Order: sequence, then structure tokens, then C-alpha cells
Amino acid sequence: MSSLDQDEIAKTFGLLKIPKNHATVGFSNMVVATKQYRSLFVNRRLGDAGWSDVQIQSFIFLLSTLDTNNKATTSGGGSVESRWCGVGEREGRVYSSLVAHRHFGLSHGMGRSGDITEPQPKAAGSSVLVKLALLLVLDVVRRGSGLNGKAKGPAAHGILLPLCTGMTMALVLSCIREAENDNKKTIVLWSRIDQKSCFKAITSAGLTCIVVPTKLDKDSDSVITDMEAMEAAIKEHEGKVLAIITTTSCFAPRVPDQVDKVATLCAEHGVNHIINNAYGLQCPQTCKLINRACVVGRVDAIVSSTDKNFLVPVGGALVLSPQKALVQGVGKVYAGRASSSPILDLFITLLSMGMNGYKGILAKRQDMLQTFPTRLEQVATKYGERILKCPTNTISFGITLDNLALARTDDEREEDYLKAVAKDISAFGSMLFSRCVSGTRVVPRAQSKMMGGHEFVGFGSSVEGYPHAYMTAACAVGLTTEELDEFFLRLDKTLQEKHNNKQSKRSSLS
Amino acid sequence: MSSLDQDEIAKTFGLLKIPKNHATVGFSNMVVATKQYRSLFVNRRLGDAGWSDVQIQSFIFLLSTLDTNNKATTSGGGSVESRWCGVGEREGRVYSSLVAHRHFGLSHGMGRSGDITEPQPKAAGSSVLVKLALLLVLDVVRRGSGLNGKAKGPAAHGILLPLCTGMTMALVLSCIREAENDNKKTIVLWSRIDQKSCFKAITSAGLTCIVVPTKLDKDSDSVITDMEAMEAAIKEHEGKVLAIITTTSCFAPRVPDQVDKVATLCAEHGVNHIINNAYGLQCPQTCKLINRACVVGRVDAIVSSTDKNFLVPVGGALVLSPQKALVQGVGKVYAGRASSSPILDLFITLLSMGMNGYKGILAKRQDMLQTFPTRLEQVATKYGERILKCPTNTISFGITLDNLALARTDDEREEDYLKAVAKDISAFGSMLFSRCVSGTRVVPRAQSKMMGGHEFVGFGSSVEGYPHAYMTAACAVGLTTEELDEFFLRLDKTLQEKHNNKQSKRSSLS
Amino acid sequence: MSSLDQDEIAKTFGLLKIPKNHATVGFSNMVVATKQYRSLFVNRRLGDAGWSDVQIQSFIFLLSTLDTNNKATTSGGGSVESRWCGVGEREGRVYSSLVAHRHFGLSHGMGRSGDITEPQPKAAGSSVLVKLALLLVLDVVRRGSGLNGKAKGPAAHGILLPLCTGMTMALVLSCIREAENDNKKTIVLWSRIDQKSCFKAITSAGLTCIVVPTKLDKDSDSVITDMEAMEAAIKEHEGKVLAIITTTSCFAPRVPDQVDKVATLCAEHGVNHIINNAYGLQCPQTCKLINRACVVGRVDAIVSSTDKNFLVPVGGALVLSPQKALVQGVGKVYAGRASSSPILDLFITLLSMGMNGYKGILAKRQDMLQTFPTRLEQVATKYGERILKCPTNTISFGITLDNLALARTDDEREEDYLKAVAKDISAFGSMLFSRCVSGTRVVPRAQSKMMGGHEFVGFGSSVEGYPHAYMTAACAVGLTTEELDEFFLRLDKTLQEKHNNKQSKRSSLS
Amino acid sequence: MSSLDQDEIAKTFGLLKIPKNHATVGFSNMVVATKQYRSLFVNRRLGDAGWSDVQIQSFIFLLSTLDTNNKATTSGGGSVESRWCGVGEREGRVYSSLVAHRHFGLSHGMGRSGDITEPQPKAAGSSVLVKLALLLVLDVVRRGSGLNGKAKGPAAHGILLPLCTGMTMALVLSCIREAENDNKKTIVLWSRIDQKSCFKAITSAGLTCIVVPTKLDKDSDSVITDMEAMEAAIKEHEGKVLAIITTTSCFAPRVPDQVDKVATLCAEHGVNHIINNAYGLQCPQTCKLINRACVVGRVDAIVSSTDKNFLVPVGGALVLSPQKALVQGVGKVYAGRASSSPILDLFITLLSMGMNGYKGILAKRQDMLQTFPTRLEQVATKYGERILKCPTNTISFGITLDNLALARTDDEREEDYLKAVAKDISAFGSMLFSRCVSGTRVVPRAQSKMMGGHEFVGFGSSVEGYPHAYMTAACAVGLTTEELDEFFLRLDKTLQEKHNNKQSKRSSLS
Repeated sequence: MSSLDQDEIAKTFGLLKIPKNHATVGFSNMVVATKQYRSLFVNRRLGDAGWSDVQIQSFIFLLSTLDTNNKATTSGGGSVESRWCGVGEREGRVYSSLVAHRHFGLSHGMGRSGDITEPQPKAAGSSVLVKLALLLVLDVVRRGSGLNGKAKGPAAHGILLPLCTGMTMALVLSCIREAENDNKKTIVLWSRIDQKSCFKAITSAGLTCIVVPTKLDKDSDSVITDMEAMEAAIKEHEGKVLAIITTTSCFAPRVPDQVDKVATLCAEHGVNHIINNAYGLQCPQTCKLINRACVVGRVDAIVSSTDKNFLVPVGGALVLSPQKALVQGVGKVYAGRASSSPILDLFITLLSMGMNGYKGILAKRQDMLQTFPTRLEQVATKYGERILKCPTNTISFGITLDNLALARTDDEREEDYLKAVAKDISAFGSMLFSRCVSGTRVVPRAQSKMMGGHEFVGFGSSVEGYPHAYMTAACAVGLTTEELDEFFLRLDKTLQEKHNNKQSKRSSLS
Repeated sequence: MSSLDQDEIAKTFGLLKIPKNHATVGFSNMVVATKQYRSLFVNRRLGDAGWSDVQIQSFIFLLSTLDTNNKATTSGGGSVESRWCGVGEREGRVYSSLVAHRHFGLSHGMGRSGDITEPQPKAAGSSVLVKLALLLVLDVVRRGSGLNGKAKGPAAHGILLPLCTGMTMALVLSCIREAENDNKKTIVLWSRIDQKSCFKAITSAGLTCIVVPTKLDKDSDSVITDMEAMEAAIKEHEGKVLAIITTTSCFAPRVPDQVDKVATLCAEHGVNHIINNAYGLQCPQTCKLINRACVVGRVDAIVSSTDKNFLVPVGGALVLSPQKALVQGVGKVYAGRASSSPILDLFITLLSMGMNGYKGILAKRQDMLQTFPTRLEQVATKYGERILKCPTNTISFGITLDNLALARTDDEREEDYLKAVAKDISAFGSMLFSRCVSGTRVVPRAQSKMMGGHEFVGFGSSVEGYPHAYMTAACAVGLTTEELDEFFLRLDKTLQEKHNNKQSKRSSLS
Repeated sequence: MSSLDQDEIAKTFGLLKIPKNHATVGFSNMVVATKQYRSLFVNRRLGDAGWSDVQIQSFIFLLSTLDTNNKATTSGGGSVESRWCGVGEREGRVYSSLVAHRHFGLSHGMGRSGDITEPQPKAAGSSVLVKLALLLVLDVVRRGSGLNGKAKGPAAHGILLPLCTGMTMALVLSCIREAENDNKKTIVLWSRIDQKSCFKAITSAGLTCIVVPTKLDKDSDSVITDMEAMEAAIKEHEGKVLAIITTTSCFAPRVPDQVDKVATLCAEHGVNHIINNAYGLQCPQTCKLINRACVVGRVDAIVSSTDKNFLVPVGGALVLSPQKALVQGVGKVYAGRASSSPILDLFITLLSMGMNGYKGILAKRQDMLQTFPTRLEQVATKYGERILKCPTNTISFGITLDNLALARTDDEREEDYLKAVAKDISAFGSMLFSRCVSGTRVVPRAQSKMMGGHEFVGFGSSVEGYPHAYMTAACAVGLTTEELDEFFLRLDKTLQEKHNNKQSKRSSLS
Repeated sequence: MSSLDQDEIAKTFGLLKIPKNHATVGFSNMVVATKQYRSLFVNRRLGDAGWSDVQIQSFIFLLSTLDTNNKATTSGGGSVESRWCGVGEREGRVYSSLVAHRHFGLSHGMGRSGDITEPQPKAAGSSVLVKLALLLVLDVVRRGSGLNGKAKGPAAHGILLPLCTGMTMALVLSCIREAENDNKKTIVLWSRIDQKSCFKAITSAGLTCIVVPTKLDKDSDSVITDMEAMEAAIKEHEGKVLAIITTTSCFAPRVPDQVDKVATLCAEHGVNHIINNAYGLQCPQTCKLINRACVVGRVDAIVSSTDKNFLVPVGGALVLSPQKALVQGVGKVYAGRASSSPILDLFITLLSMGMNGYKGILAKRQDMLQTFPTRLEQVATKYGERILKCPTNTISFGITLDNLALARTDDEREEDYLKAVAKDISAFGSMLFSRCVSGTRVVPRAQSKMMGGHEFVGFGSSVEGYPHAYMTAACAVGLTTEELDEFFLRLDKTLQEKHNNKQSKRSSLS
């Protein structure tokens, strides 16, 4: 990537008395590395094979030398010549070399005051890195996850933000509000899903959230989109609805919303449609569903988290959209510069995976899916429980926990009994956690929670009156076989223990 | 920080045949390190001396072992025993060991769906780190910068966000709107400052920004708060004003707003008052002014950037407030988890600095301030320019650029002439940049810019009709003596060159 | 490992408002880490499971805080309080924080002027690290590789040196010479193996090397120890022989020396016996053979390389011995301090592997061994070659290359023909290398080489007049299945190409 | 350093929508970096300004991509395409990514079985790095330290070894013995210096060390070379003396040997002359003396440590010589590959320093030298002691400790008294160490030590019967002003305390 050419280097090698054939081998290695760089620049796609850590670091440091501030990250003392002199209020100065080191000398972050995607004059290397990261992740969701990347497809355009899905949702809403530029449109219809951050995103954007109830599917245990309720709501608030938010990745028994049907509705009523697809990029069924929604109706934005889909630390989100204007608008709504750290993590990870590596982790999840529900069912059956039938949720699985608690005694009031049961069931969740099982959710029946002035009856199951207590576990990307085996063992043991406790309690009662 | 005690270790040293006196020396070193940890825990204040990189890393890795996910960051292959098995959708899994490495194995970020300050059950270490970082930075702004940290003082309470000042401003506004809970209060009065991100923050929060004009001080070259205009605006929109935003760190000739007077006004009218103090923590005058504002009137939040004040990479902001409720509210408005990377940078940097180190960089800036304006004036005078008198802005300094452009020729229309001059003056900025001088701003007269439907006449100088073209340079924290010397040299040379060009142009014209 | 106890921390967590149950989870993680540390200290054995990178780094930084110099490795500037003031000529000062960082702040190396195993008063942490590394590697070669670690077993005692096997061999010889303290004993008998560094080690120690010829086994293709020649040599130089050096890891067709028989001979004649076992720790047969040698006869030292056996960068060696005095002597012969970098690499790697991981890589090699020779034979047969039968060498395998060169034409002198053939065969080696196959050795017939005044006839095959040209490939630890598959493909292709060339040459000749 | 040219990149920047002027700035930064690389290759000299950490890392990773093994260092899992397949016994495989990371992916070390300076076919990048490190350090000792680098000057040729000075000395002796090839030359004359490693180096090379006594200078307190004794020894052992070893960096009161006179003697008698100049490269007087020795007489090798002169961790040595043959010979004596880690540390450090940085640390030492002796004298005088006059030792300084111990009581036997005093004086050393003062040496009168069968009477002061107890402290490179101030404070306090103890003991006696 520089103007040092091979002839010069060959000459140098000669002067250094490195034999010609060694140099040749070295060059062939370097040429391959360079080819990868060039291929990245020219094709702006992710190669099939992953890059080695050496190549990745070599490339990032090369980009880092393009920035103006690397003078500041020198260790050892003051003898580094200051090519640049900075007399601004923010010059990418970094005090600690530990800090500089963990950022490969990059310190300018991303974006400018007007737009988070705007390149920075002082930081050409950072700008390139951020642009490339977006191109790579778009390539991955298209060729890896299977989202349609052609014009009007869900992955036609995208923007990466160093924010989680909740805040990103708020930005998307702000952007849509600005685009609509209609003061009356202040309502967001939200197909109920019992999770705080999306709800908060709506209110913190200064909008009103109308929770549209879901319903229990009559042929399964699934909690599904209530299309009638949705349509009723849209009609009730005609002219005031800014957007509908649906969700495609969720805990069982909630299943992905019927986003194709909602998309049709949105098209009919001229309402924006945002899909909360936090961790659905790993799921081919969900990606197909989203593709379809874009064909049959209206989808304005799909919001996904980077950590849950790409195995990076918490902190980034990807907004996809069939419309260029939307992602551009989102970039402009983010007012100011931002940390590029989450984007850098993604960039490193994608290069390290290569397309084969990404497809590999998806394939590994599919493999586990073959047995996950069966094995879960086996454990459940041992204790008189059963798996919840939610065929369209292929990430999160649930089993009933209806026999975990003692039966109601004659002299117990129903209300007291229900409270006791809820406590008992929740305690089971703690038992699992204290046995180093993380990520399960244990949901008793008939709980309620107030959130932003709205009461969520049956909180946890995203529907009122779900007929079971249950627990969920996810077969998500990155799960290892060893973890999985261990999980089933510990689940079994913990259920056994819980039942033993129940037995002994019963004895003591009688 | 563990239950291994000295006796055990001493025994081990014996078994390993390490002489007793060596062990004693080792222990004394370890005890000092431990004392520092304990002092941090117990006092939750920054020690006077900085920590060494070894101590910092040792401490962070210790915190990292408290998190549940460090199993995932193992290199080399699959033999690490999985103590935890995660069956959630987000388990802090990290694919690349390069990525894990740069985060010290921390991957859970900070916060939970309901509140960014909420501790995470899976990540006790991360939670502690984030809490400590806040306590340290509060200590630093109190004892280092001089902000009053007592009850009702500006630094009584605080929150750190992995967001830049613009987005943080938007969050603060959302929080205030929710707290006020009054649909009519949709107006924000903004004492004009020509910078995009704050303006955008207001509109992206769904609020209406009313730009309150500033005015030229009659005794100096300063652009100052127009208190009459502010009072008029507040009266005009009585009952609809949610907040006033003032600014205390800005480019000359704009000087810090008279936040004490605005605070009094806000108290009188029951209006929120937010101070944009992006990089003013480094300035004792500004900190005193803010202290005073809190005594005499109303200040609800002070927003500062972490990168500009503490020499970390871009990405974090600190919100200070006399009220606990406000910072708690801001935490709740940030919906979801976030990257803790900018907070980690700050944590490392503060530990590395120690209180002495922080005071040291402030003192170094004060030292430079002794000569900065004089030296700038000297260069200016050589070319028929002068320094702009803006005594209350002690960070940014300006010199006129009135003689840089050719005089108007007789046959030139004023309009054409002004355009030509503006272009010419701007070109001078490019000349400086291409000579590796970054951070200067060159502002021609009489430019205008549309932003969000509002026309900013005289854009750049934050006032209409500023009577000079000028350039600014900042004497900000982290500036080195070498840079400064170099800057004056290059400025001189570039001015010389520009004048020579002018001369030769003039000759060619005549 | 400090005196901060859980109660204190718990209190702190409370003050920081970390919920009690989070703290509990964190503690349980920390306690496990601490248990691992303690187990390492108390048992001084390698645990079954590997440690995560976070745990390893946490532990090394903890050791690093025991050293006196970590003050020096601070980044960012001068505010770190200097607890220690050093007024010696060597104080572990490190200029570059990049350098400090890669050594975890450790800078004192290992050893003192009198003994490389001596602990350093200024560096208790480094001393512990080096001691533990030795204990871990002894544990691994005993329980993992299967060397007998009991009294008088080959792995009863050991020493780690930051030197490669050649230099280590020289040190062992110096140590033996000093121990014998007999000026007449200046001869080392060396069972011929065609490799430079061991030969050089003998002469650079100021001793005379007598090369004892090997012989061709009559029942196989193996080059084996010539016991008669060895016995004759020992008798010829009776009273002057300091030591016999045998070799147990070597390229086919040379097979491991019959070290048990040589050991018997050494015992009878009171001669020292050193085994060059560079990469034989990975091979159970070799380890058994060495165990046996120690039972039936005399073995004084076994020298192995760390990089070849434990997958670390080049630079370390392990000397094992049934006698404590010998390893102590070796430590004293190394005059001065040394880099502990290769020992640190080994320490990290063993902790990362755990005993299971180490056994795992050995088992993986055994797995590959199932098919390696068969697959090699298959390729060979296709081109009229065959595998060399060397049943006791289970690491290196050879195939003949007798049909690679053109047959002698009638008018060609034998001498010229042989030269041409040798060149031709060597070219085949280059062809493989240029196809990115590394590690093969291609040996033509009848080559000779002078080394230190001694002519090695038939250089490469460790015997005079080996009847085949051949190439070798190794099935060594760390080889991946993908590499192996690729190797057979490329070998096949390259042989094909070579034969095509031969064909076309033949045609052009006729 | 690759074939990606600027046009291509410019095009890419366009495609990525990075504005042209940003790209230009980025390029100018990259071009500067490239210029530095090229300058390093073409000039093979150290630039004046140091490189930033980003540039250093960028360059090392670039070299690392030239090696064949970087495939192995990938984190995250198995999807990296294996360009190279290695079927040798040593393929640079690295198990732990932590280990790979700290070596920038380099794993092949340096050298080959026959010569440590030989380039490796699999590791062109490592080979280049090692060659460049030598060229840089030669440049530094010539232009920085002032050693003559012209033909026949002491720095005409050099070799870097990953060994400390003791082992290096042994290698140099082996090399000389081989070159002389005369069995009778087995004696090394060693101008007495009380330090173990050099003495051991001689015996471990299988040679006989004759300790030539030093003498007390009559005009000062210095212990100086006894030229008469040296000449006598050379005559006594005429024809059997292989070499004379002198020392130019040592603890006071020993001063640098008169190497010019010894050089003359060596020239006259045809005896090799090796100078142990462990940490004398920092001292201009010593460098001048060595220059002179090479002009007037014979010097074969100068051995220096890298850690003491260049502030890197322990582990490397530099051999300089007026003769090319000698350094080549030393390279060949080191049999086998070696860790390149100490060389990498030096390479990073020199690039980080730049020539200005190196000269800067030397100049800083010279500055401190202005006051060091005076301040030491001041403290000494307070307690009735005085500074030792040793004008030619400008690194190590001593003060008498003659009044530290109680006077002999009437009923005490001299022998008992001396022992008691020695113990008492030594205790003072421990007191200093326990007050975190490291590097001082406290030497009582009349101690003896056996080393390799030779008795060193008056051990510590390098001469028999030195008339004072004393302590030394060094003004060595890297010492900071803060450390120095602190040292004088603590020394004062400790002396005070010791005297108080003495007082109270005396009182208790009387």
C-alpha cells in the first residue's frame, strides 16, 4: 500500500545479504497479503477465507498511519518529531499508551458534527475503516445470512452505529419523524413484546407508544401478532400513526411477528414500518420472512445488534433499509462524533472469520438445532413437563414449568397461592444461575409490570393470560457443544433437586 | 483481592526456594499495589500518584475475572473447561481473540435494557469498573478542575455515557421533557453558537430550537450572550420553553455565555438550564463561573466531553448536575446496553494520571497560556493584523485576517469582491492544513449557512456581522511546547507566503 | 493473592450499589480463579483444564507487581510515584512502553551472575514464574509424555534454559567436564547424525568429536546405531572419553539410537551419556525407550527443545536428568542473567493448554499417525517409489526418489551422471518449497560435506552409502488435518509434474 | 512496501466517498511513514527522530507477513486458509494466541543450525529484522556513543546475541580458541574484577583463568590495572596465553582498566584482547579510551550488554570488533537457532528513540553527573565519611563507611571485631534495600570468597586490602531526577538512623 516497490526491496534484501530465494518466499507471502488488501479495496467484499491476526493487525496499523494523530501515541518519551502540530480543541491526543495501544493508535472515532458517516479530514484511515466495515457487514448479511441486497431488498442499504438496538431504534424514529415532518404523527404502534429498551426508545424520542396486544395461536403454544388488533389500532389512530414496530427475534413462546402481513398493512396505510431484528440475522427463516415483507409491503428499517449476531462485545447496531434516504437520515440524526470501537471490533471479527467462517458459525447453529428441541423435551418429560410448541421461533425454546410448585392446599386463598408459586418458580431461575447456567428465563404465570405508565399484564410472555409457567433457553450462534451438553445435565439435576425439595416440603406439610 | 493470604504465599515461596528476603521485597510491592486497590475501593477517590501500567492491567484483569464470560476468550483451542454454560441470546461470546484482548476479556458492555447505569448480573467486574470510573471522574472534576461537588454544586452528581456531547445533549433534553411531562413545553432557547451537533440534538429530540442571537461586546472583540434577547425570548414563549442551552467552551471571538445571569433568569422563570461545557473542564475561570451559576440561579445539567478534557479517544461524555434525579433520569433514558470502551479508556487514563498527573496537565496549559496570546500577537503584528480581545475566552484565541486579501479594485462589484475574499481567506486555512497545522479555524466575513431551516448569518463567528475575518487557535490541554513553537513558525511562514502571493498577484494586476 | 478479603470487597460492592447476588456471582468466578492460583502454588502441577487468557494475564500481572521495576513501565508521562529508587547499573528500566507491554512489565529476566536458576532479589515475581514454569513442564513430561519422574527416572530433575538445543548441549558438556575434572577426558563419541548444531556444540565446548558411524539395518531401510563401532570406539579411547551423545529424534531413514544399549555400555565404562531428544517428547515410544535406558544403564542428561514439543516460538530448551547434581551444575555453568522470554512463552502455553490440552495435541498426532504412512505410500506407489521401512521412527517418514531422474545414458560418465542426478533431485525439493510445502527434506545419493575437518560421506542420511535417494516428511505435533490433506495433494501434483518434465526431456533427447 | 500503488488507493478512496483532500492528507502521512521505511532500508541508519508506536508496529507486522507461519496465529477458530503446509518437525507453530501476539506473529527466532546470523528460508521477515537491528545498533554506538566505526575501529563490525555478557564472553573465547587452533593456548589472563559471570565464562569454555591482581592507585582511591603484574603474567605463561580480558565498566573504587596499555602489550605479545564493556557504551570517556586502544594496540572484541545500555529487558549482548572474521566466527560458534525476542526489544527501542532520543538519554546522564558526586559527598560529610576519589570511573561512585560501626572495645579480639563490623556494615545495605533503595553495594573490609578454586581476598573491591569499608551508587543511563533526589534523601535518613542505633548501642554498652 505504499510506493516502496519490490525492486527496491529486492535490492535491500541483497544489501542485507538475505539470499534471493528467501526473499522470493517472503515476497510471495507479502504479495498474498497485499492481494487481500487490494481485493478488499477493489471488491469491497469479504473474502472466503479469514485473515490471520498478523494480516489484520498489519492492515489496521497501515490505516492508522493515515490518521494525523499517531504522533501522540509514542511511548518512551519526547523524542518523536511532531510532523503535525495541532492547535484545535480536539486533536486526537491520547495520554495513556495503554489506551492508544488498544485502539491501534486510532483516536478520532467516527463521524463529524453533522453526520456520523461523514469522513474526517484528520482521520482518513479511520474513515476508510468505518466505510469498509459497513461494506463487509452488508456483504455478510447478504451472502451469509441471505437477506436480499438488491434494490428495494431489506439489505440494499445500511448504516453501522456504535449504539445498541434500543438507542438505535430511537434514532430511526427521530429520523422518520423528521422525514414525515408532520406534527400530528406522534403515535407508534408496537406489537407487544415484553422488553424494556424498545418501549423506552419510543418514549425517549418524544413519541407515544400504543401497545398492540398479541394473541395466543390456537394451533400451538405460540404468542403471535394479532393482525386484527393491529389493523384496528391503525384505523383508530388514522393520520396520527408515525410507525409500526414489529419484532422478529424474541423469547419463546413469543414468535417473530408476521412482518409480511404488517408490511402489507403499512403499505396500505402509508405508515412507516420498523423491524426490531435484534439477533435474527443468524436465522434463515427470519431472513426469508423479512425478504418477503419487503416484496409484499413496506419495511423502512431493520435494526439488528452486532454483538448478538457477530460475537463481538456489546455496543453496536446495524440498521438496514430498502431506502438509501433512510440510512442517510439516520446518520444525520446522530449528532456528533462517536467511538468507533464497536465498529473496529466488528471489522476485525469479520476479517478474522472470512465468509467461510461466518457461514460456519451459522451452520454450526443449524446443526445444534437438529437435536436442541428433542433433548430439551427429553429433560422436560422426565419431570412431567413438555416443550412449548412454537414452530416459527427457531432460536428460543421453552418448556412448561407447571409441576414445579406445590399444589394449592385447601385453606389457601388463590391470590396467596399464585404469589407463592410465582416466587417458587422464580427461585428455580436463581438455582440455575447459581449453578452457572446463564441466559435462561423463568417466567411464572400472571405477573404484571408497570412500564412508562402502561401495565403489562402477564409480563414476560408478551401476552395476557399465558396458560403456563415456563422457562426458555436459546440455541444461539456461538453456543458450543460442550456448553450445550453441560446445560442439559445441569438443567436435569436442578429440576431433580427442585422436585426433591418439593417432595420434602410436601412431607413436612403432611 | 482474593482469599490467598500472605502466609500461604510465603509458604509457597519457601517451597519454590525463593529466599525469604526476596519474598519480603515482593510482598512489600504487592502490598502497595493492594493498598492502592483497597484505597480505590474504600475511598473511591483518585490517588495522588498515577498507577503504573502493570498495576492498571493487573487491576482490570482482576475485575475481568469477576465477569462470567472470560471462558470465551481463550486462545489456542478448545480445552478450557466451561464453568458457565450460556443458553441466552447474548452471552458475551467473542469470536476473535484480538478483540477479546483489546477489551481485557470484558465483553458485556455496561447497563441493562432499563438503565445504562444498572449493574449486570453476568458482569460484576464490568459493573464495578463503570461505577469506579464515575467516582474517579467526579473526584477529578471536583478536586482537579475545581467544580463544587457539595450538595447543589454543579458536580454533586454525575453520569458517564459512551456518547459524544451532541447525543448526550439529546438524552438530557429527553430526560427533562419526561420529567416536566408537559406537552406544551417544546421550545429550547439556544444562545447562538455556530456548531451543528447541539442544534441537531435539539431537533432530533423532537423539540423546536429558537436561536437566541448573541451580540458584540462594546468594550472588546468578544461575542457575548445577549441577555436582553434571552429575556425577551423567554417572555415571548412563556410556558412553552422547556430549557435554555448555554455554552461555556467555544471558539473565539465567541466567549463563554454568562451562565450565571442565564441561571438567574431560569430560576425566575422556572426553566431548565443546560450548559454545553464540551471542553471547559480544563479552564479554572469557566469552572468558577459554573460554580457561581449554581449558587445564584438554576443549572440542571452540564455536559462535557471525555476526549477533549481527559485525552482519551473520541466517544464519551460526562453529565454533571446539582440534582441526583436528573442524572438518574438520563441513565434511564438511554435505553439498553452500551459499549463500555470509552469508559474503560477514561478509567485507565485517570488511574495512569493520578490526581497529580491531571493537575499537571492543567498546570502545563496554564503555563502555556502565559505566552500564547503574546506570541500570537507578535506574529499577527508582523502582517498588519492584531489579536482579537476576548478576555473571557482563555482557550481559543483569534487574530484578524483583514489584510490577507487584495483590496477591492475599482471595477469590482462589492458582492463579487466579498466572495473572492472569502475564497481567498478560506484558501489560507487549506494552506495551513497542508503544512500539517490542524485545528485552526479560518473564518471569512459575511458567510451564511442554512441549518435545519434556520439561516445563520455570519456563520462561524456566532454573531451577525462580525467586523473581521479572522483565524483561531486553541491553547488546549495536551498541547506540547514543541507543537506550539512549531505552530508559530509555520503560521509565520504561511502568512509570509500568502502575502508574497498577494504581492505577486498585485504586481501582475498592475 | 492479596490481603483484600471478601468482606471488604463485599462492603465495597454494597457502597457501589452492586446488588448482592451479582457480587456473589462475581465472587464465585474470582474464587475459582483464586483456587486455580492456589492450586498452582500448592500443588505445583498443571491442572487438567486450561486457563482462559484473562486468567493467565491476570496471574502474570500479579506476579509482575512483585517485581521492583514496574514503576518504569508507565505510559503517559511522569506522574507515577517512584516507590523504588534505583542507583545500580541495571535497574530493569525499559524505555519503550511497547517493549514493556509485550513482557507484561517484567524486565529483570532470570538468574543471577552465578546461576541461571538463582532467584533475583529485585524480581520475586519473575523468580516465581520461572520456578513454576519448570515445575509445570516437569509435570507435563511426566504425566503427559510418559517420562518417569521418580528418583533415577529421566524426568526426576530438570532445568529450563532460554537457549536452543545446540547451545544447551554445549552447556551440558561444559558442566560434565567440570564435574569430571579430568584434563584427559576430552573426547566425545557421537553416534552419527547429519546435523550441524550438535557437532558444533562439541567443538565449541573445546572438546574433540569422534563421529561413530551408524549402519544400515539388514531387515529394514533404517539407519541404526552401530553398537560394535560404538564399543570399539569407547575401548580405543578408554580413559579419554568424556561422554557419548546419542539422538532419539531424527529424520528418516535414521531411527532413534538404541539408547538403552548405549546406556548399558556407558554404565560399564563409566562414561557420561547425553541424549539429544530435540523433539521426541511428543513420541510415546521414544519416551519409553528413554525410561528403559535409565533403568538398565546410564543416562546423564536428556536435551529437548521447547518450540518443537510445546508449540512456542524458537528459543528454549529443557534438560532432564536422573541426577539433581547435573541440572544444578548446568544452571551454574550458564554464567549470568538471561532473557526469560522463552520461559514466559512456555508458561503461558502450558497454562493455556492444561494437561488435557497437552494430551489432546499428542493424541491428535497419534490419530494422524494411523494414516500418515499409508497415504504417503499411496502417493509414492503411483510414481514407482515406495515408503522407507523405518518402524522405530514414528515422527519422520521417507519415500524413495529413485525414479525421479533420467536413467544414465550410454555415453555419460558415472561421475557426471551422479552429479546431474543429485542436482535434479535437489531441484525437486525446491519445487515443493515453491509450492508452499515446507519441512520436507530431499536427499540425493552420495553427497559429501566437510564439517569441522571431518568428512561426512553420504551427508543427509547419517550413513555412508545409503542405497536410495529419498525425501522425508514429518508427522509432528501441531500438524493440522487440513495441512496434511493439502500436503498429499501437492506432493502428488509435484511428483506428476516432475515426471512429466522427465518424459518431455526424454522425448527431446530421443 | 507492497505493490498497491497510490493511484489504486486514490481510486478506492473515491469509491468509498472519502473526499479527495482527506485522502491527500492521509497519503502525506503514509508517504512519510513509507519514507521512513525506505530510509531504513536504503540508508540502514537510525533516523534522527523516533518513530511512533503505530509506525513501529506497522513496520513489524509488515515484516511478519513475510514469514511463512503467520497462518498459525489466527484467533477465533479454523477458517483461515492454510497457504503453507508444513511437514517438518519445526514449523513455527504457536499454540497460544497470547504468545503469538506478544511476538507480533514472529516465531522462527533467528539463525540456523550452523550460524546464528544466517537468514532462514521460512522467515525472510525475521531475517531482515535481525539484520536491521544490528545495523541500527552499530549506527547508534558509532554516532551516538562515539565509538570509531571505520576500518580497524572498535565498532567496525558487530554481532547481536540473545545472550547476556557472561555467555557471550564464553562464545567469544570459544571462537578465539578455534581461530588460534593451538592446544597449548589454554590460559586467559584476567585483570581482577570481583564479579562471577566473567570468571565462570572462562572456566565453562574449558580454559584456565589466571587472575592478575590490581593495585591501589597512589594518588587517589582508585583500584587500577597493575600493568607490571600483567606483563609479568604474560611473560610467565608465554605461548600459553590465549587472551587477556580487561574491564571498562565497573563498580567504584575499581576504575576502567587501562585498556590502551593492555592493548599495546597484547600487540607486542600476539595475545588476544577482549574488553568486557558491559555498560560502558553510555560513557564518552570509556568510548574514547576504547577507540584509543584500537589505535595503539590490539583489541579483538568488546562485549556490551543491551539491557544496561539501551533500556531493554535483560537478555542481549553486542559484540563489537575491529575484525570482520571475529564477529563471523562468533556467529558460527553459537550452534543453532535462538530466540530473537531480545533483538526485537532492541529494534523497537532504537526505532522509538531515534538518534536524538538516544543522544538525549546520554545527555541527561551527563547532566546528572554535574551534581551527583557533590551531592553524594554532602551526605557523606554529614556522617564523617567522604567520597572515594576515583576520577576515571564516571558511572559508579563510592563513599566510605568507616564510621558506621562501633569502635573496637578493649576486650574484643580483632578477628571477632572485624566479623562484627562486616556484619554491621552489610546490615546497612539491607536497611537501604528495605527502604526501597536498590542498586547500592555495601562492601565491608577484609572479606574473602572462594570462586572456582581461587580465593578472592578483599572480595568486592577487586583488590586485596582495600583500606575502607564503603558503599557505591551508580549514575547510570535511565536514572530520573526524581529517583536521584529521593535516593539522597533516603541515604541521609538511613545513615542517620544507623548512627542513632550505634549511639543507643554505645549507651547501652556503657
